[in-house]
Amino acid sequence: MVKIAIIGAGNVGAALGTGWAKAGHEVAYAVRNPQKPEVLAAVARGGDRASAANIADAVAGAAVVVLATPWNVAQAAIQSAGNLDSKILLDCTNPLAPDLSGLAVGLTTSAGEMVAAWAPSARVVKIFNTTGYNNMEDPDYNGQAATMFYCGDDADAKETAGKLAADLGFDPVDAGPLKLARTLEPLAMLWISMAFGGYGRDIAFKLLLR
Amino acid sequence: MVKIAIIGAGNVGAALGTGWAKAGHEVAYAVRNPQKPEVLAAVARGGDRASAANIADAVAGAAVVVLATPWNVAQAAIQSAGNLDSKILLDCTNPLAPDLSGLAVGLTTSAGEMVAAWAPSARVVKIFNTTGYNNMEDPDYNGQAATMFYCGDDADAKETAGKLAADLGFDPVDAGPLKLARTLEPLAMLWISMAFGGYGRDIAFKLLLR
Repeated sequence: MVKIAIIGAGNVGAALGTGWAKAGHEVAYAVRNPQKPEVLAAVARGGDRASAANIADAVAGAAVVVLATPWNVAQAAIQSAGNLDSKILLDCTNPLAPDLSGLAVGLTTSAGEMVAAWAPSARVVKIFNTTGYNNMEDPDYNGQAATMFYCGDDADAKETAGKLAADLGFDPVDAGPLKLARTLEPLAMLWISMAFGGYGRDIAFKLLLR
Repeated sequence: MVKIAIIGAGNVGAALGTGWAKAGHEVAYAVRNPQKPEVLAAVARGGDRASAANIADAVAGAAVVVLATPWNVAQAAIQSAGNLDSKILLDCTNPLAPDLSGLAVGLTTSAGEMVAAWAPSARVVKIFNTTGYNNMEDPDYNGQAATMFYCGDDADAKETAGKLAADLGFDPVDAGPLKLARTLEPLAMLWISMAFGGYGRDIAFKLLLR
């Protein structure tokens, strides 16, 4: 059982939290207003193992912190989180340009690397950014588990992240060091472009092995 | 039957040409020196339907031109190709940084878009860049066809490109307009990083549909 704080209770945060609560983990939504209707709804979906608190309180009690906010508030959320020393920080963000036409950062850096710079004492893993919340709720594709790619520089943190992805039903795949966020964030852009470009949300990436 | 000129007879060019010659297409390797041993070997692998000529001659007789060179000679190759009016130009390049540590261009443009600017009268499709030559030789993964993502702004050119991918055994997937090369080139970097980061070359991406 892992104690998890999820910063943000939007579609992605709620999908992750609901799945982990059902899998037996203890989930606290870390939000500015724990009484907001969407937060209460996420807590209700999670049952006995889900709760909500302000960001610093929820984070203080957690071993794993999940950053599931829009990109434009990610830095402020980290600043509100308090002490992140040695905590595992799962970065689910995508640095979408304001008009959603592309990414705002990339090539020579990534949101994942920026998050790591903003939270230098945390162990950052980039994960849960390359697919939609619908796939986080159900990653099964006709008997095949969708792949969840992740990357980071801390082996133990990556192992925990991979297990948390498997708990949701994903096939977890370690893509390498955190720098690979420079490829996983464009992969998210590919998913978004295709999902909203005619394919719909029921698409997912799979890594095939021979 | 499509007349195809392949600029470059390296691993990627030879894998594509051999597969297409076997599928019944007419393949001409477009190279600076048609007598070079690797070119003669590629021609021999292709059998009766494969030949080699200098770049301009091979391109002149083709409806489809395939750019399968290293990135640092791609612009010069296009300049040597002669008249590309209305030809379909399949861009297989990846703009790898000289030390292979990442991509040299991206985020706000892509190799695909740069190739289109260098060959403004051609109909450019980005394709055959997101996987290794071994998968081009055999895209079958235990009964599942690896996906070949492609993108471009000309519907007819994309249809031809998709058919040529299917002729090799791939599951062709249209990712959208040429701008999506900004995501397909990082996807290549993900494949390269994983293949040389411990997974080996027998990995491939698949788009799952529910």
